[in-house]
Parts: sequence; structure tokens; C-alpha cells
Amino acid sequence: MRFLFPVLLLAGSNALAADDNIQGFDAAASADQRAIESQLDARINAGEMDEWLRVMSASPHHVGSPASKANAEYIAELLESWGYDTEIAAYEILLPTPKVREIELVAPSSFSASLTEDTLAEDASTARREGLLPPYNAFSRDGEVEAELVFVNYGIPEDYEVLERYGIDVTGKIAIAKYGRSWRGIKPKLAGEKGAIGTIIYSDPADDGYGAGDVYPKGPFKHESGVQRGSVMDMPTYPGDVLTPGRGATERARRLDREDAPTITEIPVLPISYRDAMPLLAAMGGEVVPREWQGGLPITYHLGPGPARVRMKAEFDWGMVTAYNVIARLDGSRYPDEWVIRGNHHDGWNHGAADPLSGQVALLAEAKAVAELAKAGQRPLRTVIYGAWDAEEPGLIGSTEWAEHHADELREHAVAYLNTDGSSRGFLSLGGSHVLERYLNQIAEEVNDPRSDISLKQRARANRLVNGDPKVQAEAKQRADLRINPLGSGSDYTPFLQHLGIASVNLAFGGEASDGSYHTLYDTYEHFTKFRDPGLLYGATLAKVAGRATLRLANAPRLPFEFTGLADNISLYVEELEELADAMRESTETTRLMLEDGTYAAAMNPYKSLGVPIAKAPVPHFSFAPLKNALDRLEAAAAEFDTSAAASGATSEEINQLLYTSERLLTRDEGLDGRPWYKHHIYAPGFYTGYGVKTIPGVREAIEQREYDKVAPQIEIAANVLDDMAERIELLSRTITGEM
Amino acid sequence: MRFLFPVLLLAGSNALAADDNIQGFDAAASADQRAIESQLDARINAGEMDEWLRVMSASPHHVGSPASKANAEYIAELLESWGYDTEIAAYEILLPTPKVREIELVAPSSFSASLTEDTLAEDASTARREGLLPPYNAFSRDGEVEAELVFVNYGIPEDYEVLERYGIDVTGKIAIAKYGRSWRGIKPKLAGEKGAIGTIIYSDPADDGYGAGDVYPKGPFKHESGVQRGSVMDMPTYPGDVLTPGRGATERARRLDREDAPTITEIPVLPISYRDAMPLLAAMGGEVVPREWQGGLPITYHLGPGPARVRMKAEFDWGMVTAYNVIARLDGSRYPDEWVIRGNHHDGWNHGAADPLSGQVALLAEAKAVAELAKAGQRPLRTVIYGAWDAEEPGLIGSTEWAEHHADELREHAVAYLNTDGSSRGFLSLGGSHVLERYLNQIAEEVNDPRSDISLKQRARANRLVNGDPKVQAEAKQRADLRINPLGSGSDYTPFLQHLGIASVNLAFGGEASDGSYHTLYDTYEHFTKFRDPGLLYGATLAKVAGRATLRLANAPRLPFEFTGLADNISLYVEELEELADAMRESTETTRLMLEDGTYAAAMNPYKSLGVPIAKAPVPHFSFAPLKNALDRLEAAAAEFDTSAAASGATSEEINQLLYTSERLLTRDEGLDGRPWYKHHIYAPGFYTGYGVKTIPGVREAIEQREYDKVAPQIEIAANVLDDMAERIELLSRTITGEM
Repeated sequence: MRFLFPVLLLAGSNALAADDNIQGFDAAASADQRAIESQLDARINAGEMDEWLRVMSASPHHVGSPASKANAEYIAELLESWGYDTEIAAYEILLPTPKVREIELVAPSSFSASLTEDTLAEDASTARREGLLPPYNAFSRDGEVEAELVFVNYGIPEDYEVLERYGIDVTGKIAIAKYGRSWRGIKPKLAGEKGAIGTIIYSDPADDGYGAGDVYPKGPFKHESGVQRGSVMDMPTYPGDVLTPGRGATERARRLDREDAPTITEIPVLPISYRDAMPLLAAMGGEVVPREWQGGLPITYHLGPGPARVRMKAEFDWGMVTAYNVIARLDGSRYPDEWVIRGNHHDGWNHGAADPLSGQVALLAEAKAVAELAKAGQRPLRTVIYGAWDAEEPGLIGSTEWAEHHADELREHAVAYLNTDGSSRGFLSLGGSHVLERYLNQIAEEVNDPRSDISLKQRARANRLVNGDPKVQAEAKQRADLRINPLGSGSDYTPFLQHLGIASVNLAFGGEASDGSYHTLYDTYEHFTKFRDPGLLYGATLAKVAGRATLRLANAPRLPFEFTGLADNISLYVEELEELADAMRESTETTRLMLEDGTYAAAMNPYKSLGVPIAKAPVPHFSFAPLKNALDRLEAAAAEFDTSAAASGATSEEINQLLYTSERLLTRDEGLDGRPWYKHHIYAPGFYTGYGVKTIPGVREAIEQREYDKVAPQIEIAANVLDDMAERIELLSRTITGEM
Repeated sequence: MRFLFPVLLLAGSNALAADDNIQGFDAAASADQRAIESQLDARINAGEMDEWLRVMSASPHHVGSPASKANAEYIAELLESWGYDTEIAAYEILLPTPKVREIELVAPSSFSASLTEDTLAEDASTARREGLLPPYNAFSRDGEVEAELVFVNYGIPEDYEVLERYGIDVTGKIAIAKYGRSWRGIKPKLAGEKGAIGTIIYSDPADDGYGAGDVYPKGPFKHESGVQRGSVMDMPTYPGDVLTPGRGATERARRLDREDAPTITEIPVLPISYRDAMPLLAAMGGEVVPREWQGGLPITYHLGPGPARVRMKAEFDWGMVTAYNVIARLDGSRYPDEWVIRGNHHDGWNHGAADPLSGQVALLAEAKAVAELAKAGQRPLRTVIYGAWDAEEPGLIGSTEWAEHHADELREHAVAYLNTDGSSRGFLSLGGSHVLERYLNQIAEEVNDPRSDISLKQRARANRLVNGDPKVQAEAKQRADLRINPLGSGSDYTPFLQHLGIASVNLAFGGEASDGSYHTLYDTYEHFTKFRDPGLLYGATLAKVAGRATLRLANAPRLPFEFTGLADNISLYVEELEELADAMRESTETTRLMLEDGTYAAAMNPYKSLGVPIAKAPVPHFSFAPLKNALDRLEAAAAEFDTSAAASGATSEEINQLLYTSERLLTRDEGLDGRPWYKHHIYAPGFYTGYGVKTIPGVREAIEQREYDKVAPQIEIAANVLDDMAERIELLSRTITGEM
């Protein structure tokens, strides 16, 4: 692993990148900006945020509900009142809501799952159920099936390899899977691919219940009746309205027939609580599960199939609803055509206090402060657009439709997209495009943790040093910047980053409070303020962090993009790809040899049905040379740009435009193999992980999925993408130093 | 890591060690010996073993019970009838048996633990309870205490470090600990050292219950009422009768006052089932346990202290009982003064089908076959002594008293001690003195797995290759001999190996059947033959393996000791010691730095009580040079011996005596620091692990326990021990090649 330290110390005194200057600002501008940021901080009011949170989380407010519309209007009124040019951008989208949900054990005993969540005396919100959507998985198809259960653990690819070794086939069966280890939509997708006719997903108490900590209302973890709702739309194919891929779901948009929509599941799926799962799992027989599959219920888990036989029925109202995005705009005083976009969704599955309102109120606090600063004469130089998205929960729909609808303008004008979503407390989690790594680190250096007098960066680094795995620890010791996470999916940055190639950021606090209320009836104001972020201390800090992120992009004379962080991260990915191929080649070969010489068979327990693994085709050697050559060029260009950028204070609209459109060069119009909506060739959600990121996804997934023929062409594409980026950076250096 | 391959391929055609010859036998003798072994195999009768098992496991047969005496007599009669010169060697030993056992939750709710195990309709043995000892821990002291509970996880040293970080002190409290991760006696020992006034030990269902697999009678795992009995005598200080350390507990032996016996616990301790543990743990409060401490009960575990308050009372009858060892002797036809000792205990905590009778019936089958062979003209050349030990369960008492009683003779005459104990099915587990590594490997090469047509060695190697950790896998690929396990404690080899310096072996099958019946009412004939070793297939194979082990030692013209295996293993231990010191030094220093610069504090969750770790004194550098110099000499001497031994067929009583007494040179009369009974300086049970081995224990424990001043002197002693061994090997080479 190579560490490419920023060469900032070489910078001249008048340079924009001098050590104590804000990235993209010279000394004087840095001082002005820091003064603005002090005023920003002073205007962030946790009490006000708490009030907004209380109001908006009073009722369930999923897209299409009256409360969601009311919240959109509430947000719009606030933004309007602060001086934003505000509109509600509405889209007509398909949203299935449940009509019939039934899960019934029909043999060897009988039991009907309640599929409801308990009202708790300790939490008044749980009694306010007007408009409540019961537990369901949006974009499950309709269906009624009856079959034996097979326990598929987390329902991810390696679990099916294990089942195969046990001689268990899910064809014609109902798969029962634990939540976790993948985005939920992967579970019915894979189960369907394997031949299952239905999927039940439950939260195991070992992962998310009493096995993890005290359950609600005593503690924050999942109540025994709690059910994680959530979309199972095939978002790794494309997110957004299922009927209008690639275009805005305006009233008159061309729409697919629902039958042709490829992102609705192949088989019906329903989520249940662990209380409802218990009788189903207890009735199962067959071989005992592998030790690491056992969950936290007080029974021995079995693989099946059967004798537990289940009838499940899921029927939905496939109606159209209106998604209300609130779009608030403050035109830039100097560069109105350069847009900094800052978003957070507002729809929740239920009361949605944590998800998404904890982030939404941070956005509002920021927006209010920015507006006040503008009124006080500190109007941002660039245009700032706040987006409060609707319909994120069913599939990033509000943001996606808006981004698709305005794709051309956004590609032209968008400097960056800054996202938040549900947030809690603990350590600042930094995700985003690596051209913004240094910029984000600098912000984290300048905001303090609300519970201690150290910076967020110090605290996040301490966490990595103390709690990280050895690789993370070693890196945290040496690397000046905290490595920021590449973005997969799971929130509204996806259409901006991966569809449009707009450099994006995702910010949140986490790591010190539990997620047990996620998508359940218990994600309430009461739960959030008691267990997640009492006093909204971290929420207010998030507003300060995101406010800086917005204002630095809005005010920077030269945009704070830089490329050594990008090059370093890409060099890591290239190393990972080589290691991945080597490790797969070695383990494939070792397994093959041990199968051939009988070693594997000799190690099997003759009293159990677990068989030897299936031999896989040998993994060939791949030429990574094109990628490495392109990476060399990228690294050289990035280093040269650092030097040029440090030496020269030159800035211009041309330079800024070359900077902020650089991320577009990492995309290709034709998109990824098999999923053209995803156009970014460095960051994508995994086709079989869902939210989890795959970096250099074309190459990585070809290797992982053992599609060896595809590896070389994908390496070629990735190398071209890097070459284009290097060329842009070279052009930038020449432009900045006036060597054109 | 250096691999020292045996240089057997250099051997001349007339050498004893030629590749196809049995170690210590020339070609002709090998052929004769293999013919004997074929006859041995033919005489092993699993049906007969099954019958002995059924008879002896009919009733509970702990030491002091009528059934134990009856079993001793039954064994003696069998051995006598086969032609052995048989005696019952009786010792008078202290054995506490329970009078009062009470555990009662007194606050915040009330509950009385049943402390009894259920009778099961499916297992008739569980209804036969005449003479049954109820669940208890032998050598707990008497006491009645009442205090709040503290949950101490497994109650091992690192658990107390975690508790300290939570600010929790067990002083004046009752510690409740899970079984596992250490020998049980460590739990009250440590709890007492830390100030607790009582200890409760329970089997957590995640480790040993429904979380591990189907429970009895559906499956083999621990029934909800099952309680693991067992001794908590401080065996790492000395095993055997607590009143007669170092001497045989004959009727007239000098005895300590009970009050002065150092191996009785400082605080009362009682074991319970997970059914009884549930209400106690559910009543606890305080901070939630660290995630990895959570067990398998359907509650969130808490650290306490309290509010659960427990009264526990343990009162014992501290009576003397008679332990009946059966000693059967067949004098050798040529070397009657060289003794091969083969043992297995006969006492069980209850019906004891698996533990110990599964091993005992293998010993009997072997003994019967050996006697028949003798009658048929194949009397062993050396004396063979079979020992069926009593009172192993309360603390290796029968074997220890016999070994102490006959210490001088044994030091003079004992060639080796071969042990078995409870055995089940799966892979052959080879443990013992490394001078016998090659000999054991050769046996494992020549006996086939009963369920497949491959050798036990191939199967054991396959297991390491498929299921081992990467280090084990890598070694299993390259090393000709399977590395045998160094012996800690937990069975009757301890007095022979670690007190007397007699090269020892421990053999068992395992890895493919569960241990859930261990020391419970459910260790019955029914359980064993249904779940552990149906048809006694592996039991019969164990008789073949151990029979070969006995007869090869008994008949070898030159004893099959060799030293390259020893040297290789010791080189591994020396490496481990250096790595241990380096790793401790580095982590101590890293922690210290992170404490000093505030990194640790910054990573702590301000909403939780977990604090930073306590800084420890820096770990100095130690000079391992004396040990490495001695190791070099040992390696050279071992290699030279291999060459000499291969080149020359010379053998004599003198050579054999030099060979079999070589293990004595690894001992020192003064024993280990603080526990003089343990005289072996290469193998010992860990002072804070109990059964788990510590190799080169003087050095290793000084480092682990951070007693840095002791490291250099202990290195000196270990180096001297290796030097003495090297000198002996050099003498052997000279003797064999006639260069004296």
C-alpha cells in the first residue's frame, strides 16, 4: 500500500492550499470563511431542531400518506419563510401498499403470525397509528404460496453454497432468512434465482434483539414484536420509480407496464418479527444448521426442508401516489450557474424520527443558518439547493426522479451533492467521492465532538486506532487523512453520484447508539431522544459539519477538489482486485486439489449430510497492466496538480468547471454490464450485496462472479476511465500554471 | 519455523529405522511384529466391549460408591481371568460429597434453583439413581454466603480485565461464570483471588445446549437440566489426594490437616444447569455485557453487580473413601524390568459411559488380546502393566497416589505411560511426549479409519488441511509427521509425565460427536451408543491403536524414541515465546501510547461505563540466547542420533535404558516456580488455564504473568534442561556407534 501524502507543506505563502488555509481559499478568504462558519455555528439551535423533529415525527409519514404531504409542506414553509425560492416538485410514482398479509404454519402444527407490532405504554407515539403502514416489503410481488420452509441463514450467495453442500435445494420451497449481512432486497432476489417460491425475512434476536442489548422500551434494541419494513425493489438494477427507469416520473412520462418492470421481485416476500419467527423455526427439522448460522432464539435451528410447512399470502394495492420533493434554492451571488446541492429525505416508514428526520432537522438547521447569513450579507457565491426528498424508503424514488428529470442541467451545473439521512451519535462517518477526501478531512479537523474538546477527526481516528482491525489501525497511524468510505447505495446520493457522475458526500454520526428501531413502529421521537441522540447534541454537530461542507463548496474561490486522495484510494482498489484474484485462484486450486486427492472427502463427518464443496473452474491470471498503467498516470497527474495548485493561486470559472465536472469522467454512458442505469465505473452498489459498495465494480464483480471472460474488457474500461481523469487533471495543471 | 524432516531415507538396509520398518525394529522383527498386530486386531471384539460398557455403566460409579468398587472388582476379575497378575491397589483419600446444596435468588425476586437433573423416559439409565451424586464441584469448601451477583463471563483472567474497565469489582460478590474456555477449577480460584465470596458455574446453552445442537434426548447436546459436575481442586498446584501431596495415600501415610490443604478452594462453588441459571441472570442489572459475552439464553445478559442477590450454601461430608486402582501385570519375557504402563480410569461422575468407560473398554479389549497373544506364545518382551484408575474425576487421585507411592520404581523401570480416557468418534487425537512423535505417527499410518479405507493419519491430516487454521493447514501440507499435541492435564498421564518425567502418550478419537453429556446424568450407555460411537467402531479402533502402542514399546529391540521431532517442537515453542514477548511488548506499548496521548479516552463511548484499559509496565527485551544455544545443540544432537540410529542396528539394555530415561532429564527435582510437584520443564498445565498446556512453562508463564524478573532465570533452567537432553542424545549416538 502506498501512502500519498498531500504535498501541502511545499505550498507558497500566497497559495490557496497552504496548510492553514481552507482548501480552495487563500489566507484572507479563509479568514472570512471561518468567520462565516463561526456565525453558522452560533445559529444552529438544537432546541429548534428538537421541535421540528417532534412535529414531523408525530404521525406515520410514508410517501403517499397525508402526514408525508403535510411534512413536505411544513418543510417548504420553513424554507420559504427563511428566504429560499421554494417549490414542491411532485412525481407520480407506483407504490404498492399491503392489502393482504398472511403467514401461517400449516404443518406439523399450526400457528398464524400476528404480523403486527405492539403498542407500548412507555411510548405514546406507538399508539398513534393513523395511516400506519403495517410491516411489509415494498415491491414484493403479489402471491399466495404454500411450501416447506428452508432456513437460508442470511440468504446471501455463500449461504446457498453451504446449502448445496448439504444437498438442500430451495426449489419450490419458501426460504426463511435473517435480516443482515446484505441489503434486504438481495434475499428474495437470490432466493428467487435459486427457485424458491416465497421468502420470509426476520430479525434474529442475536443480531437485533435481546442478544444485542436491552430491548425497547428498556433499551434501544428491537422489541420482540418489531418488524423491519423496507423495500425489496431490485435497486442494484436501478432505483427510483419502477415504471420510469432513466426518466423523471412526471405526470406525462412514458411508463412501463407493471408486468415489465424488472425491479419488482420474482416471488412474494414478507418480513416478520422474531416473536413470529419463533414457532416457524421451532417447527423445522432436517439437519442442524452449521454452528455459525445458529441465531439467538432459544431453540436449535434446523435447515429443513420442512416438516414446517407454511402458507404465505401477500397482496398489494398497486396504486400511484404523489411524491413531494421540496426544492429550495438560494441563487449564488457570484456563480449562480454552479450549484451545490444538499439533500436529505423526509419520508419515513412510520414515525421516522431517526430515519430520516434526525438528518432532515440537521439540514433544516443548516438551511436556516445559511439563509440568515445571506440576509446578513453573507450570501453564498454559488447557488445552494436544498432538497427534502420524498419516497426514499421505497427505493430512493423522490431524489431519483428529480435527478433523472433534471439530468442535463445537473450534469452541467452541479458542483457536488451532499447527503445526510438518519444519524445518531458517536463517530463522524465520512463517505463520498475521493476527490473530496481532503476537503472533508479538513472540515472534520475544524469541528469538535460535542461531548469532548477534541476534533471530530481526532475522535474518528481514535476509534480506528482503538477499535479498527489491524489493517485499519496501521493505516490510521500513518495516513494524514482519514480514508473516506466509497459510496455504495442506501440513500439519495445514488442518482447523483452513480447515475449522473456528480461528486457526492454522505455524512452521519454513528457507532455509539443502536439501530434497533430501524424501520419499525418504534422509530419514534421517544426512542430517538432517549436512546439515539439525547438533546440532539450530535444532530446539531451534524448541521455544523454539513453547513461547512455546503458553504465551503459554495464560497471557495477555487473548488476544493484534489486528486492525490483519489489516486491513493484507487491504488488501494487495484491492489484489492489483484489480491482478490490471487486469493480466489489459490483457494479454488487448493479446494480442487483436495477434492481430487480425496482429502476433502476424508475430512467429512460420515454421520452428517454435509458434503464436499463443488469444484469450481480454475481462476486464470488476469492482466492488470492497463489498469496499473492508467493508475501510474493518474498518480503522476495528481501529484503534479498538487504542486501546481499549491504554487498558483489562479482560479477561474473554467478551472472550477474543469474541477467539478471531473467526476463525470469516471462514468460511461453505457453504464455497467447488465445494469446500464449505473454509469459510474469506480463506485457502485454490489449486484449481490445491495447497499455494500463495489469499487471498480465492472472488474470486481466479473472476478467475484467468476465471469472470467469479462475481466479483461472491464479492466480496459476502468483503465480508460482513469486515463480520462488523468488527462483532465493534466489539463487542470496546465490551466492553473498558465502553460496552455 | 524450521521443519526437521526425519532423515530415515538415509538408513541402510539393515538399520532399525529403515523406511518400511517399524521404529526400533529391523526388517525381520518388523514382519514378526506386524504379524502379532494382525492377530491383535483379529482379537478386538466390539460386541464384547459393548457388553462391558453396558455392565459397568449400569449404575453411578464414582469413587467411594459400591458400584465403583464393583466395577474395580469386575475389571480385576476379567484381567485375572485372562492371565494377568492382578491386584487392587487401594488408597485412602479425602472425598467431599455434598450434604447441603442451595442456591436461592433472594432479590429482586425470589427463586430456588432445583439443582437436580430430570429423569427422561427415553433413557432408562437416568432413572437408575442409586448412589447418585447430585451436581456439585468436588473440593469446593463449605460455606454459606449471600451477595449480589456479578457476571464474569468465563471467569478467566482477561474477563476480569474487562470488568475492571467497567469499574466492576467482585469483592464481596458472588461470581456467576460460564463453563468453558478454561478448566473449571480456574473459575473459583480466580474469583477468590479477586475477592468474590462465592462462585456459581453454569453451562451456557450457546456453548453447550440448544445453541450448539439438538439437546438430549433428541440430540446429544446438554439437556436444560443437565449440570456438569467436576472437581475444582487446584490441580495446577498439585493433583491427587489433597492431604498427601507428593506421597502415596496409603493407610498410614502422613497427612495434612484439611485446613492446611492448599488445593481446596478458598470460596464455595456450585454448578448449575442453564435452566436454573436463567432466573438468576434474568434478574441481573447493571451495564449490558460486551457483545461477545452474551450467551444463548433468550435475555440480555448484564454485568451486575445485582440487583440479583443470591444466597448460596454448600456443605460437604468430608469423609475418607477408598480408591481402588486395578493393577494388572504381565511380566516381560526378556526385559521384565522395563515396564510399559497403560492406563485408563474407571470411576465416573455418574453412569460414566463415555467418561471414562468408553476408553476403559478399549483398554480391556487390548489387554484381553495381549493376554491371548501371550498364551499363544507371543508374550511381550517387556513387562506390560495395565492400570484401571479410580478417583480420576475428583483430581487424578487414583493414578497420582499410585505413581507417588511407587515413584522410585517407576522412575527406574517405566519405559512410557500410555493413557486413554473417554473417547468418541472422528479423528485420532495424538498427544504426548515428542520423543514418541514418530512412533505415534507410524502407528497412525498403519491403522485404518473404521468408516473409510484410509489410514487414521491420512484422515487426521485431511482434517487439519480442511478444517485447520491457516498455520495448521500450511504445516499439514509440508510436515511429514503430524505434530502431536503437548500434554497439559485433565487425565491420568499427569503424575507419570509431569511428576515423574516418564514419556507419556494420550490417545482418543473425537471431533465428530458432541460432548454434551459430559459429567451429567446423561452420560449413559443409551446416550453413548446412540450419539457418540454407535457400534463402538471407533472404540475398537482405539484398542487397535493403543494395542500397537503398547506392543511396539513392549517388543521393540531398540525403543522407538527419537529426538528430531522433539527438537522441532521445542524450536516451535522457543519461537512462540519470542513472538509472545514481542507481541506483548508491542501491544503494551501501543496501549500505553494511546492512553498517554488521549487516543484511548477519545474512542470511549461517553454514554457507557466502559473505561480505558489500565496501563501495564513496559515489557523488557529478554535474552533468549541461552535457550537458542541449547536448542542448537539439541537439534544437532538429534540429527546426529538419527544418522547413527539409522546406520547401526546396535541395541542393548544400556541403550534402551538411556533412551527411556531421557525424558527424566526434562525435569528438575525442585519443580516449577511455586508448584514444586510439577517437575517437567517442557510440559505443564497452565496455572491459569488448568487443563490447557503451557510448553516451557517456567518461561512462558513468567512472561504471560508479567513477572519479568523471573524470565531470565527460567530461561536458564529451560536451557539447562535442553542441554542435559542434548548431552544424553550425544551419549546415545556414541553408544550406538560404539565410539565410547
